[in-house]
Amino acid sequence: MQDTNKIYDDVRAVCRAAKNAWRSYASTSTTKKDQLLCDIASGLSKDKAAIFAANAADLENARAAGISAGMLDRLTLDEKRLSGICSALFDVAKLPDPIGSGTRTTRPNGLQITCTRAPIGTVAIIYEARPNVTVDAAALCLKTGNAVVLRGGKEAINTNRALVTSIKKVLSDNGYSPNLVGLIESTDRESSVALMNMRGLIDVLIPRGGKGLIRSVVENAKVPVIETGAGNCHLFVDASADLDMAISVAVNAKCSRPSVCNAIETLLVHRDVCEKLLPALKTATVKYDLEFRGCGRAAAILGCALADESDWDTEYNDYILAVRVVDSLDEAIDHINKYSTGHSEAIITENVTNANRFTSEIDAAAVYVNASTRFTDGGEFGFGAEIGISTQKLHARGPMGLYALTTDKYIVSGNGQIR
Amino acid sequence: MQDTNKIYDDVRAVCRAAKNAWRSYASTSTTKKDQLLCDIASGLSKDKAAIFAANAADLENARAAGISAGMLDRLTLDEKRLSGICSALFDVAKLPDPIGSGTRTTRPNGLQITCTRAPIGTVAIIYEARPNVTVDAAALCLKTGNAVVLRGGKEAINTNRALVTSIKKVLSDNGYSPNLVGLIESTDRESSVALMNMRGLIDVLIPRGGKGLIRSVVENAKVPVIETGAGNCHLFVDASADLDMAISVAVNAKCSRPSVCNAIETLLVHRDVCEKLLPALKTATVKYDLEFRGCGRAAAILGCALADESDWDTEYNDYILAVRVVDSLDEAIDHINKYSTGHSEAIITENVTNANRFTSEIDAAAVYVNASTRFTDGGEFGFGAEIGISTQKLHARGPMGLYALTTDKYIVSGNGQIR
Repeated sequence: MQDTNKIYDDVRAVCRAAKNAWRSYASTSTTKKDQLLCDIASGLSKDKAAIFAANAADLENARAAGISAGMLDRLTLDEKRLSGICSALFDVAKLPDPIGSGTRTTRPNGLQITCTRAPIGTVAIIYEARPNVTVDAAALCLKTGNAVVLRGGKEAINTNRALVTSIKKVLSDNGYSPNLVGLIESTDRESSVALMNMRGLIDVLIPRGGKGLIRSVVENAKVPVIETGAGNCHLFVDASADLDMAISVAVNAKCSRPSVCNAIETLLVHRDVCEKLLPALKTATVKYDLEFRGCGRAAAILGCALADESDWDTEYNDYILAVRVVDSLDEAIDHINKYSTGHSEAIITENVTNANRFTSEIDAAAVYVNASTRFTDGGEFGFGAEIGISTQKLHARGPMGLYALTTDKYIVSGNGQIR
Repeated sequence: MQDTNKIYDDVRAVCRAAKNAWRSYASTSTTKKDQLLCDIASGLSKDKAAIFAANAADLENARAAGISAGMLDRLTLDEKRLSGICSALFDVAKLPDPIGSGTRTTRPNGLQITCTRAPIGTVAIIYEARPNVTVDAAALCLKTGNAVVLRGGKEAINTNRALVTSIKKVLSDNGYSPNLVGLIESTDRESSVALMNMRGLIDVLIPRGGKGLIRSVVENAKVPVIETGAGNCHLFVDASADLDMAISVAVNAKCSRPSVCNAIETLLVHRDVCEKLLPALKTATVKYDLEFRGCGRAAAILGCALADESDWDTEYNDYILAVRVVDSLDEAIDHINKYSTGHSEAIITENVTNANRFTSEIDAAAVYVNASTRFTDGGEFGFGAEIGISTQKLHARGPMGLYALTTDKYIVSGNGQIR
């Protein structure tokens, strides 16, 4: 554990350097920014020996610390994954640049007011031990004319240092300040809290992580924040549902990747179809060894444990599904609006009126009719890239692409107008 | 001073009631919402005797408490002002409704993804003793399908209670929940802090007030916030400026209404024109009894007191102007980016290159070329109404009209798609 003052000083130095570097970078042309991203991809390929060596050190430390197989897997960088990271850079380079576009109005007094898209400034990201996020986040921020301050998980610190060293070298070689991409070296909890307090230096903080991180941000942050990732998602099977579709979507939404935020945690079933649907769902999920926790009626049909109040409130991120039988669409909507984190909610129905009521009355970033919640994703939505999935209502909601990394800037031009 | 727990309970009850009322109001049609606003205007006219009586009580208390003439004036409601409030309601009713518009894309897998504008939910506003804000804020929120929780200044509590009573009656008479417009009865500081902590009940908090309120929000808020109003604005007179235009704009930007956030606080002058400009400016502002505080060079020309570091950082809101002579455009840009609150910044120049550098390198919501900063205002920008002027970069920047009270909602429609 380092001295807290030292950590604050280090974090402030990285943030201030990024902010200062940003001023001259903000108005870089799209052509130059895209070339920079391609050069970063080339740089990473050239530096791969150093990157793999750093990653091997991280993996050794992680194994010694006994971290889970899943986390080890996410931490691992190999030829294939590095090449995936590089091709993602080329993909971001190819996306349209939102910066500089705008709409002009001329006011009756002759003032020309142009609302333009401008970079936000300095974007800070706190994330876990996934090295690809280091490069993705840097690419999305650089593409939109922003500086970025990265604070990754401690398990990946050597890998992140190697990746950022490579990126900084390309920045310098191309005449940009290497401080445009800052890495917080300390992975103590204090360095995250320090970042949350950098008012005036950090224009937005995007935390990507679990409940603990989000809670810490809510308690501590003095800088503007976009909350991401909390996903207590539901699927409601209406009385009129196509039951084959309902089972297919339920299995996909729960079992295709239970660890992610767009997977469902609770299934709500209309009482008219519960006797048919639930046994068939149980059969369809045998191979996943899915654990059910049901309300009284659901538990009686499924022969499973009873859910308690905390189950409705839990994002399992695992092969566990809470199940509740409801008497009506209203009861389903009430349940969802009570427990939902506002991420992704779905209904399976053949009834148009019910579909419309569901989409208008459910308060969530993405509301689905007859499709799996698993599609809430920047790539699947056609944004080409994603810096996170916002579960708040301000600034950005749902998958955040390049546009979410921009802000308004009004340019007002006159010939001496006074008011 | 009331008991803090009681205040929290009362605030929570108002917020929860507003949130519950919002669910069924969110999808109200534009026609019905506009009719509601017109009915509220009629209701206020009908209830004017009660409103004026309440306002008289507030004014009596305020006089007894010895508040300033300016504040007494802002607190006063008379026939003319109430009629202005009512016509503002009709104006908001006439504005286009952003809710429900959207853009649809069809993905290769057939999923139809529609990004719609949706109400935010429950909007809370903390403001000072200006009764017109009570009605304006309610109107803008109701027009955009939101519920609103109002926490006005203590000097206006009787007036606000009378206004909200009238509005609630119209809501009830039209079959809406009166809880859509909530008034926090306690005007203790604790009730503001309680509002800042209503996570899950308040979707956005908009503080409208001075530095003290903004600081309290930054320290205490756990709900999403849009900061408004801090305006340390600058005017830079370039070497190539039309000096008559420069003086006209400077006088307007400083003296037309010094108490508002879009007035300038510091004038920066290029050294090549300072000998000519400053004496002429001094003459032009004699009738305002404008006080100058200058850097060494400016003070020598103006014969005024020296400015110290704190002057560059101060929003005077008064007939005081800090003046600094700079050697170059770069020095002006550096000064502004160091001290600006990111509100409104202006340059007077005949040089296109300098104008473009200023607009691209200055980091502010509104950047002006050859016009007064006083135009940063929802009405002047053509938004028809304004809930505040955002000085942050997230969600909304600059004057906030109806659009700033909406959020994204993705409606995804399929025929059984899984991932």
